[in-house]
Amino acid sequence: MAAVKSKVKLFGGVLQRMTHTSKVCACDMTFAVYLPPQAETSAVPVLYWLSGLTCTDENFSQKAGFARAAAARGLAVVMPDTSPRGVTIEGADDTWDFGSGAGFYVDATEPKWAGHYHMYSYVTEELPALVESTFAGKLIAGKKSISGHSMGGHGALTLGMKNPTAYSSISAFAPICRPTNCPWGTKAFTGYLGSVEAGMAYDACELVKGYSGPPLKILVDQGAADNFLTGEADQLQPNALVEACAASNGRVAVEMRLQEGYDHSYYFISSFIDDHIHFHADALGCSAAEVN
Amino acid sequence: MAAVKSKVKLFGGVLQRMTHTSKVCACDMTFAVYLPPQAETSAVPVLYWLSGLTCTDENFSQKAGFARAAAARGLAVVMPDTSPRGVTIEGADDTWDFGSGAGFYVDATEPKWAGHYHMYSYVTEELPALVESTFAGKLIAGKKSISGHSMGGHGALTLGMKNPTAYSSISAFAPICRPTNCPWGTKAFTGYLGSVEAGMAYDACELVKGYSGPPLKILVDQGAADNFLTGEADQLQPNALVEACAASNGRVAVEMRLQEGYDHSYYFISSFIDDHIHFHADALGCSAAEVN
Repeated sequence: MAAVKSKVKLFGGVLQRMTHTSKVCACDMTFAVYLPPQAETSAVPVLYWLSGLTCTDENFSQKAGFARAAAARGLAVVMPDTSPRGVTIEGADDTWDFGSGAGFYVDATEPKWAGHYHMYSYVTEELPALVESTFAGKLIAGKKSISGHSMGGHGALTLGMKNPTAYSSISAFAPICRPTNCPWGTKAFTGYLGSVEAGMAYDACELVKGYSGPPLKILVDQGAADNFLTGEADQLQPNALVEACAASNGRVAVEMRLQEGYDHSYYFISSFIDDHIHFHADALGCSAAEVN
Repeated sequence: MAAVKSKVKLFGGVLQRMTHTSKVCACDMTFAVYLPPQAETSAVPVLYWLSGLTCTDENFSQKAGFARAAAARGLAVVMPDTSPRGVTIEGADDTWDFGSGAGFYVDATEPKWAGHYHMYSYVTEELPALVESTFAGKLIAGKKSISGHSMGGHGALTLGMKNPTAYSSISAFAPICRPTNCPWGTKAFTGYLGSVEAGMAYDACELVKGYSGPPLKILVDQGAADNFLTGEADQLQPNALVEACAASNGRVAVEMRLQEGYDHSYYFISSFIDDHIHFHADALGCSAAEVN
């Protein structure tokens, strides 16, 4: 059971923030659901959006400008939080790139975190089941796609490839493509899973190598002026993903669009979100957008 | 001289935050300017956006989703802050609807505030002069329109009507239409001007009565589920504006669109911002939008 926290009209549809007690995260979790106007009369497919480090469910709904195209196409959007909240674990609030706001979309195995930090199971299993039962008749059960930004782009790529029949399409903005080989990923995998090696199971480039699902075409936008791309820490490594896909014998294709002059912010996301909404809406069989 | 605080690419154009030392406000002020891609090759007209209580220059740029249509039409947007900042006046930070973040777009006459709180002169004179000289060749000098939200909607209506040849068009979202007769307005006018009566010169309904400029057609969107519309305080009073315009013998016409189910938030603004961008772009002679 999920309780409504707030409800606001947006582009003819309804954006709701909801809270529920998560079984897999063992805490209260907040998420947001956008129902386009079409959901009033018939069930619609769903895009899951995974946000980046430090975000909550609200960054995307407030800043991405997603609703215009989602309303035009009849696509619902579900926006989970980025980690468990309100749990008492020493060190959970000490740094911005680990712990609160940084669940990394894995199921933690280290005892300290394993009681709560199960964002992988939360996003792939518990949340879809909850959302589909809460909005029965408004959402088409099992008809879903996935996208995200930065840490959430890593989440979209990895959850998508680890569950090859669950999502109709996968896209990402500035994803962390090679987390076993960058500071954000090594910190997360060491902390949650005990080692970088254990993180191989959640590394997009590794998953491309082992992918055996239906042929996949992933859309990625990456800002060429993104500090995390150009910086020494080399957090994103889009070329590693391009190379892994090139070596996959056509099993996984990526359209990697390097966007000149754009940074890592929601201003970048908002500039290209329409393309991603249409990419997923096409894959999910939404009706054509009205021209306006 | 204005210094660049940050610069980000957005829908092919550039969003810049800038700071300068304001003469009329006697303090450093921050504002934002969006230059659409067209400004690279030829000068474009400008929309001034005035934000509401508690806002800075950032709320609109982050949450309104304005840039898609502005980029399509070749319209620049200038977003000032809502009050002087960093000045030491007793009581300036005590309440959210007066003082900091609540300049009300008047020139204060009460001695306590008159040294800094000159948002009327700032927005109508100092800022356009600064922006037009800073971006000479990119902005068409004197070619401008004005819009805003709530307190900023009041600002757009009143600055627009008090300067009938300065702006090519006026629009507003959920404006405070009758500030001399509501709590927000009476507090502001009493504080900044010494009396509610002195506020008559900044009351949209009064200005309609006295308007003698070229025939004017104002576009207003008002959410029907807006708490400030439906609440006891009766802060907005759109009907008073409709009645004043009806009695103006066609000098001022208002298209008042009551939007069923919408509230006072930026979710509401984002749902209808395209219509306002196109309304102003048409009035300013921007080229037609590309269909996409």
